[in-house]
Amino acid sequence: MKLATIQNDAPDGTLVVVSSDGTRYLPATSVSATLQSAIDDWAMAEPVLRVIADGLENGEGDSTESATFAAPLPRAWQWLDGSAFRSHGELMETLFGTEPPPPGRPLMYQGLSHQFFSATADMPLPREEDGIDFEGEFGVITDFVPMGVSADEAMAHIKLLVQINDWSLRALAPIEMKTGFGWVQAKPACSVAPFAVTPDELGDTWRDGRVHLPLSVDWNGKRFGNAGGGAMEFGFHELIAHAASTRSLCAGTIIGSGTVSNSNFREIGSSCIAERRGIEMLDEGQARTSFMRFGDTVRMEARLPGGELLFGAIDQKVVRG
Amino acid sequence: MKLATIQNDAPDGTLVVVSSDGTRYLPATSVSATLQSAIDDWAMAEPVLRVIADGLENGEGDSTESATFAAPLPRAWQWLDGSAFRSHGELMETLFGTEPPPPGRPLMYQGLSHQFFSATADMPLPREEDGIDFEGEFGVITDFVPMGVSADEAMAHIKLLVQINDWSLRALAPIEMKTGFGWVQAKPACSVAPFAVTPDELGDTWRDGRVHLPLSVDWNGKRFGNAGGGAMEFGFHELIAHAASTRSLCAGTIIGSGTVSNSNFREIGSSCIAERRGIEMLDEGQARTSFMRFGDTVRMEARLPGGELLFGAIDQKVVRG
Repeated sequence: MKLATIQNDAPDGTLVVVSSDGTRYLPATSVSATLQSAIDDWAMAEPVLRVIADGLENGEGDSTESATFAAPLPRAWQWLDGSAFRSHGELMETLFGTEPPPPGRPLMYQGLSHQFFSATADMPLPREEDGIDFEGEFGVITDFVPMGVSADEAMAHIKLLVQINDWSLRALAPIEMKTGFGWVQAKPACSVAPFAVTPDELGDTWRDGRVHLPLSVDWNGKRFGNAGGGAMEFGFHELIAHAASTRSLCAGTIIGSGTVSNSNFREIGSSCIAERRGIEMLDEGQARTSFMRFGDTVRMEARLPGGELLFGAIDQKVVRG
Repeated sequence: MKLATIQNDAPDGTLVVVSSDGTRYLPATSVSATLQSAIDDWAMAEPVLRVIADGLENGEGDSTESATFAAPLPRAWQWLDGSAFRSHGELMETLFGTEPPPPGRPLMYQGLSHQFFSATADMPLPREEDGIDFEGEFGVITDFVPMGVSADEAMAHIKLLVQINDWSLRALAPIEMKTGFGWVQAKPACSVAPFAVTPDELGDTWRDGRVHLPLSVDWNGKRFGNAGGGAMEFGFHELIAHAASTRSLCAGTIIGSGTVSNSNFREIGSSCIAERRGIEMLDEGQARTSFMRFGDTVRMEARLPGGELLFGAIDQKVVRG
């Protein structure tokens, strides 16, 4: 099942169900006005939403071509972003001179959650000199998760999967990292692909708490990376257990994988510019690739083995804010 | 003017106006159902709330003794906590071996905002071994702040002041700091004193974007600290400008001062245990004071020069969660 949020004057938009092929949608307002309210009471909402989804598969619904989608959750009460791909982590540790995390311990930070840009919104940022970068990621949306949940138990709290562009400002990141406080200025709002999907939409490409699909990333229309999501060192269920060690997680918590990265990045490319620059520094002694300029575009999408676009596409332009 | 939130089944409670002496309250539901909705449209809400406040000063309203207050914002879309007291920062840098921030740059992290405990709620935490600590702070609540705001402009976006206990787990903090990613496990939910107050309630003890009042902290009924809020290296307006450098801030953003600390901490005491332990390490070569045990209590309050309790009191017990 695919869910999406129609953009309108309401801060949380309006929930709709989208056909599996992404072409048609039906309102879900008879069940839940917003995705947040659906996830607040998922046990009640899901079966009714699935009845609507069945109607869509029978040909009901309006064309998505005329719809304007917001991020599935245009704002969320919590966004925790992991960095679960070790090949990315190792490069970044080389680049920033930071220590690797203790073995068995995922990397994670608390991010800005009061605003998620739509997949096609212009991304306003103040300065090119800040080192504007994209980061292609997968993510999950949980229902309420009690404090102290185990990784095994956490699997059942993964209700929806999403695809995220975690915008980053690389000139500011190391300054903030050195303080140990994590990022504020270096991590503006993320953008999210239009469709949040239930795990069953992925078939056997969802397993071990990982999305076993490549995430294609095009920068200014040119292929930049095509790394696979299966290489996470920690699955999403393990990221949830890490996050919930000393707190409960509210329903609607979004947890990110961190930049999708594979160890054969020299062949397959990268999901962010910083990683390519890190490779250049390792291989050539200095970074050649510049960060984004105002007017640059980035497109990110994931397709099922049959070629079907899973989350819709992120396709954005970065502009002077 | 003092505002508070009555705890009930609704996740955001119900907004009330409280008399300046804290003894009586009147519902504000004719204006705004919740504090979040009031701050979403403060220009509309404030004058009407002040009319209700005038009624309270004329003796109207019910006794607050029978009321159960939640945190003013039981959940918020954004919580950014500074660390603006240099005497605290220097001690922590000594303790954790971290570098001081670059001159002119405030320390700040993005914290858990989906839950703020009430001032009297038991605080559930999983393990004493995590190093349970309190942190007494002041904070502000802003309306919408555009990206790139100057510190001067930011002053007008400070709509309410609050008093916060930023619970911290000190055994986990250095592990997370070393990664540069900031804190997830080391920073569970905060607690907030019941009354959010407009700056005019402070008279001339609100100036330069700082709360010029001592914050008294009692641990298990014994005075632990009484440091003054005026010693912030950066005022709240400067913390807001820092936060809004690369993002807009949503209405209802809470920004914290970090642990209130004065350079004469040996005389005046501390607002967190970690600071006292740091002093002991400096003075005696090792920390003698242990962190909190389950069943321990902490009380925090700020009084105006005339003795009036400003935000109400935080008075909590930490329990096994």
